[in-house]
Amino acid sequence: MLSETEIVVRYQETDQMGVVHHSVYPIWFECGRTDLIQKAGITYGQLEKDGIMLPLLGLKCRYMSPCYYGDTVIVKAGVKDMKPARIIFRYEIFRKGGIKPAASGETEHVWANRQLKPVNMKKYHSDLYQLLNNIFMQGENFEDE
Amino acid sequence: MLSETEIVVRYQETDQMGVVHHSVYPIWFECGRTDLIQKAGITYGQLEKDGIMLPLLGLKCRYMSPCYYGDTVIVKAGVKDMKPARIIFRYEIFRKGGIKPAASGETEHVWANRQLKPVNMKKYHSDLYQLLNNIFMQGENFEDE
Amino acid sequence: MLSETEIVVRYQETDQMGVVHHSVYPIWFECGRTDLIQKAGITYGQLEKDGIMLPLLGLKCRYMSPCYYGDTVIVKAGVKDMKPARIIFRYEIFRKGGIKPAASGETEHVWANRQLKPVNMKKYHSDLYQLLNNIFMQGENFEDE
Amino acid sequence: MLSETEIVVRYQETDQMGVVHHSVYPIWFECGRTDLIQKAGITYGQLEKDGIMLPLLGLKCRYMSPCYYGDTVIVKAGVKDMKPARIIFRYEIFRKGGIKPAASGETEHVWANRQLKPVNMKKYHSDLYQLLNNIFMQGENFEDE
Repeated sequence: MLSETEIVVRYQETDQMGVVHHSVYPIWFECGRTDLIQKAGITYGQLEKDGIMLPLLGLKCRYMSPCYYGDTVIVKAGVKDMKPARIIFRYEIFRKGGIKPAASGETEHVWANRQLKPVNMKKYHSDLYQLLNNIFMQGENFEDE
Repeated sequence: MLSETEIVVRYQETDQMGVVHHSVYPIWFECGRTDLIQKAGITYGQLEKDGIMLPLLGLKCRYMSPCYYGDTVIVKAGVKDMKPARIIFRYEIFRKGGIKPAASGETEHVWANRQLKPVNMKKYHSDLYQLLNNIFMQGENFEDE
Repeated sequence: MLSETEIVVRYQETDQMGVVHHSVYPIWFECGRTDLIQKAGITYGQLEKDGIMLPLLGLKCRYMSPCYYGDTVIVKAGVKDMKPARIIFRYEIFRKGGIKPAASGETEHVWANRQLKPVNMKKYHSDLYQLLNNIFMQGENFEDE
Repeated sequence: MLSETEIVVRYQETDQMGVVHHSVYPIWFECGRTDLIQKAGITYGQLEKDGIMLPLLGLKCRYMSPCYYGDTVIVKAGVKDMKPARIIFRYEIFRKGGIKPAASGETEHVWANRQLKPVNMKKYHSDLYQLLNNIFMQGENFEDE
């Protein structure tokens, strides 16, 4: 499954180089991740209320071409890999109308409880784990790199 | 009482106008507020652990001259007024070495409990209220405008 | 004239109080301002290319009730007052479906050239000034406070 | 060469998980990078004035343990590799007093001109390239992973 999120670049997101600052892309990834989870029929807020947190273990981002104030960008998000201990999301960011991604990236998260301690999600919430696995891993997805 | 906090301008804080974005100043105010409270012998983190929250009711900022990447700024912070229901902090921001403030502002906060419900601080934590009142209102302060 | 902008609250915009951090509201105001200017038939990016900058002189914000991750907010923006030297925008922020604003505010801007020096906009770009004045001041607007 | 930068965690940098949001670490990396370049005897602002820009190609971050409001963190920064086309910085972030890093990361940058077009830095500014190479690559550095 893939989601698409449209984001209008904010003036505040630019820097004195005249482009969107690189630290904004992880925030856009997060917007995409929120929408992807929602598209799976659950909200990230609900996950947190159920005591399931997804703190980051890792972040990778590649910047291919800049984004500008005035642009609308599309964030594509999908799940690259899902295990009982971890989940990896993948993202591509396009300037609206563009064919090649302006940026791409990955975030790796650990399944954790409210105290941010790692849990084995398959045991902790086995039904939900199976459900999410079925939903995220079916249908359209990013091609292997 | 007044506190002084030194902050090195971050590249991320600039925008495509080549100056520090106006939304950064409230964050700098907050850095000053953190230091002021610490100077009073308590930490804001401790207040929160004691169930005392200070959500904002109001924010004002005047921008007199821009700040730039490469600048170090000084945030002066003090308490303008303190009541059982509310507290008003005042701030002045100087580019290091500058005589006139580059910006000034105020934040008005309500004393609240963990659920963010307003409390009468004089009843809720009377000793602490008296203590903070004594500390904040003594010594050097901003002149009346 | 009034514009309406829909914004999905970002996880990154929350703080450890569990609500949207107060420094985010000026950024949302800016999103509304961008849309309002666009609704007037011009883009803020185009203004900058024409050498017209709008640095802030002042910012005011009132926080009536918190916004949360999971909320969609509506930013209403309009021009409160426009003079050859300055322009004041006004904003109201609603949680989607809400009747009372969660926050409101104003930003005061100086008309400036590329070097951020104040200009008399009526002389600097008289046609554009007249045009914007006509557009912004007609139709629906916020009631006087 | 390694630099060390001390940063006081800002309340605004936390999220509703009660920890510093992951998108803040690239900003802290940038603070470290600014200081490292300054320690080499030049400022990043001066590089930009000389028409040398350092837009990002890539960003990596590993999150080992959370940082909290109330923490002071130390950002260690160094140059991992430097070529005429690219430069890679490396970072480690420690909670003050901590022995193991709370996070680590890398940023890869392209040497570019004012128009953000890649340049061969050895030809574009050969003296400066040699100078920076000598400075960054001597003395203390991160161990190879």
